[in-house]
Order: sequence, then C-alpha cells, then structure tokens
Amino acid sequence: MAEGGDYHLPFITFEGPEGAGKSTQLARLVARLAALDVPHTVTKEPGGTSAGDRIRAAVLDPELHIEPLAEFLLYSASRAQLVREVLRPALARGEAVICDRYADSTLAYQGYGRGLPMDFLQTVTAEATGGLTPNLTVLLDLDPALGLERVVVRGQKDRLEQADLGFHGRLRQGFLTLAAGQPERWLVLDATRPADELEETIWGRVEGLLAQ
Amino acid sequence: MAEGGDYHLPFITFEGPEGAGKSTQLARLVARLAALDVPHTVTKEPGGTSAGDRIRAAVLDPELHIEPLAEFLLYSASRAQLVREVLRPALARGEAVICDRYADSTLAYQGYGRGLPMDFLQTVTAEATGGLTPNLTVLLDLDPALGLERVVVRGQKDRLEQADLGFHGRLRQGFLTLAAGQPERWLVLDATRPADELEETIWGRVEGLLAQ
Repeated sequence: MAEGGDYHLPFITFEGPEGAGKSTQLARLVARLAALDVPHTVTKEPGGTSAGDRIRAAVLDPELHIEPLAEFLLYSASRAQLVREVLRPALARGEAVICDRYADSTLAYQGYGRGLPMDFLQTVTAEATGGLTPNLTVLLDLDPALGLERVVVRGQKDRLEQADLGFHGRLRQGFLTLAAGQPERWLVLDATRPADELEETIWGRVEGLLAQ
Repeated sequence: MAEGGDYHLPFITFEGPEGAGKSTQLARLVARLAALDVPHTVTKEPGGTSAGDRIRAAVLDPELHIEPLAEFLLYSASRAQLVREVLRPALARGEAVICDRYADSTLAYQGYGRGLPMDFLQTVTAEATGGLTPNLTVLLDLDPALGLERVVVRGQKDRLEQADLGFHGRLRQGFLTLAAGQPERWLVLDATRPADELEETIWGRVEGLLAQ
C-alpha cells in the first residue's frame, strides 16, 4: 500500500481469469467516475505504452514460442514502463487510475500457474513497480471450467486461453491466496453474480476510497 | 564457468562497444572453425530467436521511449529465451557456440553505463542465464571517442550509439572491471591493433580450449 497511499485519488486494479467479466465491470466503474467528473486514467497490462504495446503483441502472439521465464520478464518490462510513463504521472496529476491487470496477474499466472519461483518473481516485481501498490484490487473469481466456456463462446483464443484446465485451477487458487494475504486491499467477488449487483458492490468500495 | 564446463566444446562470447570490430573478429573465428570442420552455432544478443528478434526490434527502435529498467528486463527476456532455445541445445549437441554479446553487455551497459543497481541486475541475470557462463569472453577494448568515430563513418546510429561520451566512458570501465574480476575467462584486447594480429591472438586461445 505504501506508495499508493501518497496520492490524492485511488489506484484500482481488476484481476481474474479470462471470461470473468473484468472488462464489463471496469467499463461500468469508469462510466460512474466519468458521470461524477472524477479525473481518471484507464489503462491495461501488458501494454498501455508504445513500448508496452509492442511487448503485448509479442507475448500474446500464439505463433511465438516464449519460455515461461522470458514471458515473465516481458510482462515485467511492460510494467516497469507503464508505472513510470503512465501510472505515477497520472496519480501525481491527481487522477484516479483504473488498470486492467497488474502485478498480481504475474504472481498468479507465472508464479502459481507456471511454477516460477515466487521469491524471484517478487524481487523483480518490487523493482518493476517501484513499490506502487493498488489501493483496491477487484478479483472476479470464477470456476475455471465456466471461464473457458465463456471465452470459447466469445470466439477469443490466444496463448493463455489455450492452456489447460490444471493451469487455470492453479491460477484461481493463486489469486485467492494473494487476496487472502492482503484482505484489506482485495475485494473478492463471485463473477457469476448478476453484473448489476457486482457493479453496485464495486462502486460501494470505490465511493469509500473517493471519500477519504 | 560452472555449467559451461560441462559441455564438450566451448561457449565463446564477444564483448565491447560499437565500432570496436566485434563482428569482424567473430566472423574470422567462425571461418576458422568452419575450415577445421568444428561443429558450431553462431548467434547474437539481443535476438537469436523468433521472440528475441521481436525484442531486439523494440529495444533498438530509436522511436520508442524505453525506461532503463524496462530495457534491462527486455534484454534479460531475450537472453532467457536464447539460453533455453539455442545455447544449451547447441552445446548439448556437442557444438561450439559463438555469441555476439551476452550477459556481460547487460552488466556493462545497464549497470555501469545507466547506473541500475548491480545486485538486482546480477540476480536477474543469474536466473536468465540459468548459470550458463562462457568459457571465453573476448573483449575488444577501445577508447570511446575512437569507437564513436568509427560508427559515424559507417553511418550507423541507433539508440545506444546516440548516447553521450560520458556513458561510453562508464561502459568501457565497466567492461574492464568485469574482466578484471574473472581474468581466467576474459581475453582483453586493444581493438586498435591490426585485425590479423587480433585474429591470431583470439585463435591461440580458442585452439587451447578446443584441445581440452
């Protein structure tokens, strides 16, 4: 929480597997902020910068064979760039920042999912983020079998989505473990609940942060 | 040296600033190996793999603004991929491997040159290389002013070459410091010596490694 707390408006991230409805809830939150004229920046990982978009294109290209360690370092490079080029400047300008995925995705996907050593991931992540931690992280939690079904229906399939159910099971447990370790930062929601209900619950937490 | 010593034929890297004649000496060494039918793989950093070539295109694109930490992580990602996809398999097949730049370039450029914390660079580099260290590293040492002059004559200018002389001075001292720390691995040569002489000196060391 350290550095996030130094800014006027909150830094909020959305986490969870593909198909859990992150994009929908993120868009709904942004619409509410806009309606209240709360200054804000919306971005995503990987990507969000010119360099990050090039990295995103590479890591999500199903034609490229990328080793898990190289994949982790690419995500971390994109994050190091995003923190310094976009996130910190926006927070320093007094804007709220809403980010679709952040460091927790890396710990869940590359650590719990792919089995890379967690202490190494945390060392690199601490350097890449420079200590910038979200004030609120919304986890849309979903049973892996349901999530993959939703993704297939939408016709989207990339490298990550083609991975097996065992991977997605470890990923889910990883997110839940991370959330349990810092309960004050995380809002864990059942992604199968109606979208309107989820929106209200998220807004309740964000309103509290805006009032501080 | 640990893992490099486990293979039949040596792993040889070339280091030094732009304009020192690395490519020339590397090509001459490869020609000698080919003439003696020594099986070998020639590669380079960053790049050397499909994923690495995408990374190379990004880090050397002068249009992209890349933070020093992100740059370091991109080089490390390219290296992690190269070690696992190319270097270890080639050495395991019983081939010599000749690489144009390797981990020492990162320590010199991003550590000594750009001032990133050396212990962090070494932690990530140890993981990216998986401990694979060259049996011989040839350093073509050159006064920074002379090196830049040569590069300008050739009409090549990219991000790195546009950096200032102060940077190149730190870079040179960085390479020399690394070499002094492991003198048995490094062959430090005055790059202004005639190319034929340099070729003979390098070949003398490589012949010794091949005979082992």
